[in-house]
Amino acid sequence: MTEKESGSVLQFAPFQSAVDEGFWHRLSSLKLNKFGIDESPIPISGFYSPCTNSRVSNHLSLIAESLPPEQSEQSSVTTNFGNRNRCSVPGILYNTNTFEGFHALNKQGLLKAEAQKVWDDIHSGKAEEDCAVLSRFLLISFADLKKWSFHYWFAFPALVLDPPATLVDLRPASQWLSLEEAESLSAACNEWRSSSVTTDVPFFLVSIASNSRTTIKHLKEWTSCQQDGNKFLFGFYDPCHLPTNPGWPLRNFLALIGSRWNLKKVCFFCYRENRGFADLSLSLIGEALLSVSQGRAAEMGTIFVQDGKILNMCLMQWDGSLTEGRRCQDVLALLNPWTQKDQNVNRLAISAADLNLKLMRWRALPSLNLNILSATKCLLLGAGTLGCQVARMLMAWGVRKITLLDSGKVAMSNPLRQSLYTLEDCLNGGDFKAIAAVKSLERIFPAVEAEGVVMGIPMPGHPVPSQEEESVLQDCRRLQVLIDSHDAIFLLTDTRESRWLPTLLCANSNKIAITAALGFDSFLVMRHGAGPISTVNDFKAEDMTTLAAEMGNFSLIDGDREPRLGCYFCNDVVAPVDSTANRTLDQQCTVTRPGLAPIASALAVELLVGILHHPHGICAKAEFANSTDSESTEQPLGILPHQVRGSLSQFSQMTLVGHASNCCTACCTTVVSEYQKRGMDFVLQAINHPTYLEDLTGLTELMKSASSFQLDWDNEMDDDDCIEI
Amino acid sequence: MTEKESGSVLQFAPFQSAVDEGFWHRLSSLKLNKFGIDESPIPISGFYSPCTNSRVSNHLSLIAESLPPEQSEQSSVTTNFGNRNRCSVPGILYNTNTFEGFHALNKQGLLKAEAQKVWDDIHSGKAEEDCAVLSRFLLISFADLKKWSFHYWFAFPALVLDPPATLVDLRPASQWLSLEEAESLSAACNEWRSSSVTTDVPFFLVSIASNSRTTIKHLKEWTSCQQDGNKFLFGFYDPCHLPTNPGWPLRNFLALIGSRWNLKKVCFFCYRENRGFADLSLSLIGEALLSVSQGRAAEMGTIFVQDGKILNMCLMQWDGSLTEGRRCQDVLALLNPWTQKDQNVNRLAISAADLNLKLMRWRALPSLNLNILSATKCLLLGAGTLGCQVARMLMAWGVRKITLLDSGKVAMSNPLRQSLYTLEDCLNGGDFKAIAAVKSLERIFPAVEAEGVVMGIPMPGHPVPSQEEESVLQDCRRLQVLIDSHDAIFLLTDTRESRWLPTLLCANSNKIAITAALGFDSFLVMRHGAGPISTVNDFKAEDMTTLAAEMGNFSLIDGDREPRLGCYFCNDVVAPVDSTANRTLDQQCTVTRPGLAPIASALAVELLVGILHHPHGICAKAEFANSTDSESTEQPLGILPHQVRGSLSQFSQMTLVGHASNCCTACCTTVVSEYQKRGMDFVLQAINHPTYLEDLTGLTELMKSASSFQLDWDNEMDDDDCIEI
Repeated sequence: MTEKESGSVLQFAPFQSAVDEGFWHRLSSLKLNKFGIDESPIPISGFYSPCTNSRVSNHLSLIAESLPPEQSEQSSVTTNFGNRNRCSVPGILYNTNTFEGFHALNKQGLLKAEAQKVWDDIHSGKAEEDCAVLSRFLLISFADLKKWSFHYWFAFPALVLDPPATLVDLRPASQWLSLEEAESLSAACNEWRSSSVTTDVPFFLVSIASNSRTTIKHLKEWTSCQQDGNKFLFGFYDPCHLPTNPGWPLRNFLALIGSRWNLKKVCFFCYRENRGFADLSLSLIGEALLSVSQGRAAEMGTIFVQDGKILNMCLMQWDGSLTEGRRCQDVLALLNPWTQKDQNVNRLAISAADLNLKLMRWRALPSLNLNILSATKCLLLGAGTLGCQVARMLMAWGVRKITLLDSGKVAMSNPLRQSLYTLEDCLNGGDFKAIAAVKSLERIFPAVEAEGVVMGIPMPGHPVPSQEEESVLQDCRRLQVLIDSHDAIFLLTDTRESRWLPTLLCANSNKIAITAALGFDSFLVMRHGAGPISTVNDFKAEDMTTLAAEMGNFSLIDGDREPRLGCYFCNDVVAPVDSTANRTLDQQCTVTRPGLAPIASALAVELLVGILHHPHGICAKAEFANSTDSESTEQPLGILPHQVRGSLSQFSQMTLVGHASNCCTACCTTVVSEYQKRGMDFVLQAINHPTYLEDLTGLTELMKSASSFQLDWDNEMDDDDCIEI
Repeated sequence: MTEKESGSVLQFAPFQSAVDEGFWHRLSSLKLNKFGIDESPIPISGFYSPCTNSRVSNHLSLIAESLPPEQSEQSSVTTNFGNRNRCSVPGILYNTNTFEGFHALNKQGLLKAEAQKVWDDIHSGKAEEDCAVLSRFLLISFADLKKWSFHYWFAFPALVLDPPATLVDLRPASQWLSLEEAESLSAACNEWRSSSVTTDVPFFLVSIASNSRTTIKHLKEWTSCQQDGNKFLFGFYDPCHLPTNPGWPLRNFLALIGSRWNLKKVCFFCYRENRGFADLSLSLIGEALLSVSQGRAAEMGTIFVQDGKILNMCLMQWDGSLTEGRRCQDVLALLNPWTQKDQNVNRLAISAADLNLKLMRWRALPSLNLNILSATKCLLLGAGTLGCQVARMLMAWGVRKITLLDSGKVAMSNPLRQSLYTLEDCLNGGDFKAIAAVKSLERIFPAVEAEGVVMGIPMPGHPVPSQEEESVLQDCRRLQVLIDSHDAIFLLTDTRESRWLPTLLCANSNKIAITAALGFDSFLVMRHGAGPISTVNDFKAEDMTTLAAEMGNFSLIDGDREPRLGCYFCNDVVAPVDSTANRTLDQQCTVTRPGLAPIASALAVELLVGILHHPHGICAKAEFANSTDSESTEQPLGILPHQVRGSLSQFSQMTLVGHASNCCTACCTTVVSEYQKRGMDFVLQAINHPTYLEDLTGLTELMKSASSFQLDWDNEMDDDDCIEI
């Protein structure tokens, strides 16, 4: 400070900040979906308006619109021209990846850089063209999306006059002005504020003619209006409510006035409102002396940037974990558990649900397609040990549309292995599994679109009495509709024969079909191949049958020579029959090592994710573990096998392939085209006459000829008996 | 019928049956634990008492004590001599394994066999010695333990007189007898019933002297009391209340009287009570004519057995699924969910919980030791994705004592992957995971003995400010107490350094320690080897260190030359340090493929079950998948590997071994004996000084020398970086 003026040093009320929850939501979303580990600074906008209350200052607010939009096509910051409550303040956000990074940021350096922008805009004339750049702010943050807690600091860079401005006088505008002047100024301000062009222009010139007539002008008009000899006030929208001090925006305005326009004596006008109109008893007018000369002001920039003194840090610090961050938590705390469906909780739950998946895209798996996963409709046949676990895994992978089909009720022995049920579901005779499972999924993630279907699956070898025929046919048709309206079908029932009709229907509709089957300590997880009759390039059934006269030959897909992959029944030489009769308790119950179902379920879901990400989808050829096959171009998720068989007694797992059989009772051309021709009549015949399928497919013939030599099934299928449970 | 007598045919009121729920409980338990698939008939006892109410007949009741005791040392049917309300009736139970078997039973044949026993006992004189064998019953059942529903039929074999007995007179005893006779008979009956020797002897002789003095005699006294010229009544405890008919037990009594004693005219006495005393107006006395001669009676057995007419089937049928079985279900239905802790539900839940496991013992795994499993105390360090799933798997394997330790709260993103939590646990800032997990386990199985410990694990490389020292030491001591009071410790945290102290404490106490660690798409599951200092055969630490001068050498167990298996830290050449600092969000969160944790958790629990069943337990040597090693004698559960590493991108899994390192920072002799010498001082030094452990173990030295040649870790540890998350 080189000289001391009379009067007191002019002091300014700091900006206060407020961050809306919506801001953090959009930031989280952008961080997860768009920015990833990129730490580049993000241009954002804060909003404020003139003070409207004699007891409360207005805040600089951050809202969702402060951030760039989430859709990538619109890359610029949304501007809100014309909103009287949203005068835009340009800001910049440094959001770090780690808490350590947050604390390690060079706050002084960043703040200097922002202040330098203000200085540059003043001296380039830009601030006169667009006065919004006179206020700026800096936000640094660490968004801990795991805990949904946000650590942040605000800073409002301000140019410091050296020596500081001296306050000569400061009074309510109503006292400063004559009555005529006040009335005219009120009218002019109200007009300025009511025009959408000027309503959010926070700095302006007030020209008071000798006849008390008052006009408001843009800053850029300063030079041109020097000649008219009027009195001038330098006006700004003042967020501060204090009668004793002007608010923060005046600081950089005075720097402009002193260093660009070289004024030494300034009358400033702190514009404040009441009920949307100028309030001249709340507004202040002050007189200040600036001691910087034109020459010195120009130098000032240079001098002080060099030794670091021009940019006084006015760093206003809030640790989000102590104040704002906790406010987010409080939103949660206030919610009664019984209003769990409340939008805010759901919104948080949805954000949180995808957290882990979105984080995968940052580094581990950038090609992960969450849209495909969330759009895929999954139908789970069976809501038992496997079904419960598969549903959980699907949700964890971001699948949102899940239908569970089961005819059973929750029994007392179920909850320990069937991970969606609790003891309460067993009371009153037990809830239907399909219904209880849906409720459980909703308790885990309320935004899941889950549906329960209480229904049995008609099975070959379980003949139907004629009076029940219509209801069985209805079930068949219902299953057909369900399969056609879903994208991926999981076969998770506990009998072989209940998988037959779904397998046929999936082969007919070319749906993704995934089977998981458990033995006592071994499992099979496989994806079914595409159907025999391509929907893209329809074969005639006759062509197919002439192509392959015996088992092991294959159908063609789209003219390609790649063999079609088999279904669950392709290795069988007998049609599915009733396997439930005469089963003792240990054969009826899922007597398996408890570790088996979670492993098989997990692999089944991982297979689905693999198929959905593979360019050939359902037609992708079988790949093998640790294969050195140069042809297979491994996908980001890894290999896509056809069958995975595992053993808990050996802690081993292997990938296998089984090609489609032309005698398959569920997926061969003969069966599928017979179904297409005869529909439910065909299904009913298969259900009622166990040998019909074998006769139709030629298995009967094959068995006769096979009896002349020894078929060695053991190599590939040695644990097949176990799989039959 | 060869001749027609005057009077009407004597008809009998059939026995009614009642089955107490306790009977089905014990039967279920015996079936699961003792009988398995054995379908041999089981001797049981029914109980009845004389009718005590003029409007209701008494039932033949089956209660828990009707069945053999569950403890195998007592093999005989418990008899209840001396209980006035439990006259024992011998019965036989055919409990089938399947519903089909139930219906296929030869009911006629079984009933004949029982009737034949009655016939034989009459003619051998056994029935006179022990009159209880005059009544018999047959029970056939199918216990569907999965649905907790019981299908059963009762049958009461009765010998049919041909021609049938003719009723001459039937009146209340009080009308039949003179007042003196009645008073004397009442007194005699009350004396008979009040003696513990005779109270449950349901057939007897009533001798009425000419002076009206009445005495009651055993059947075996028949011959000797023929001479006294008294009037005789043939008395029996009559469960029937009807004034018009005697009850069922009289049938076989008449067969004895007619065919063994050759009487043609019989006065029978249906003894009934009121408030514990003889009630002669409720009791009946009747006179019947038997037309079978002595000779014919003897023949009768032969004749009618041959042509099948002697044994008239009196099959009384209740299908349990319609009446009694449903009553069990109703017990459940009546229970309000809010009184879930009700003993009956818990009892059912406990029975049901073990169903699958007990069924395993029938055929698949007879050597399964459920007692060891239910007694093993498991401590889970970490209640996140792995901890939740491990706890579930443990419960499914019958483990009942589970302690979960975690310092965190349930976050919004947790429920989708952490299978014990729901959205409700996230409200109000989130419940502590350890507490929420326990509640969840109790909802699944109320009899679990689960405990939650909210506590962090002190970690090396996370130096402690001196003011927090005492609380950290307290945590260390608490962890030590917890580990010492449990049998198996699961290391399921998400940082490497948090596993150090538990690993050391387990090595020190020779506890089972199992680690599961996840990468993005790969996992490691391993059991730690035994501690370096055997508790059985204590080595001196000096001996150990001279044995092995470099990494890869091994310590000895009990003088055996088998190398000691390594711990999680044995492959490391650096001490654990703070790995959490500077982690970005995707590194902080468990960014893993969702399928990974269920697989790793399942394998970790299967490893525990393997260790608990292995004769060498924690010292069992490493076994490998599909090994042809003739030395390894595979256990019923299969192999017991040391490490299992798996990859989801390859759908592969492999078993590996890593031997204990003498430079290991967690389990080598130097570290463990230093801990034993210096206790918590040592731990604190390791926590505060990261290089201390490396200096102590010689790793610092080793690293210096190792820099002179290229260590190729890649072969075995190529995914180790991933494992670090």
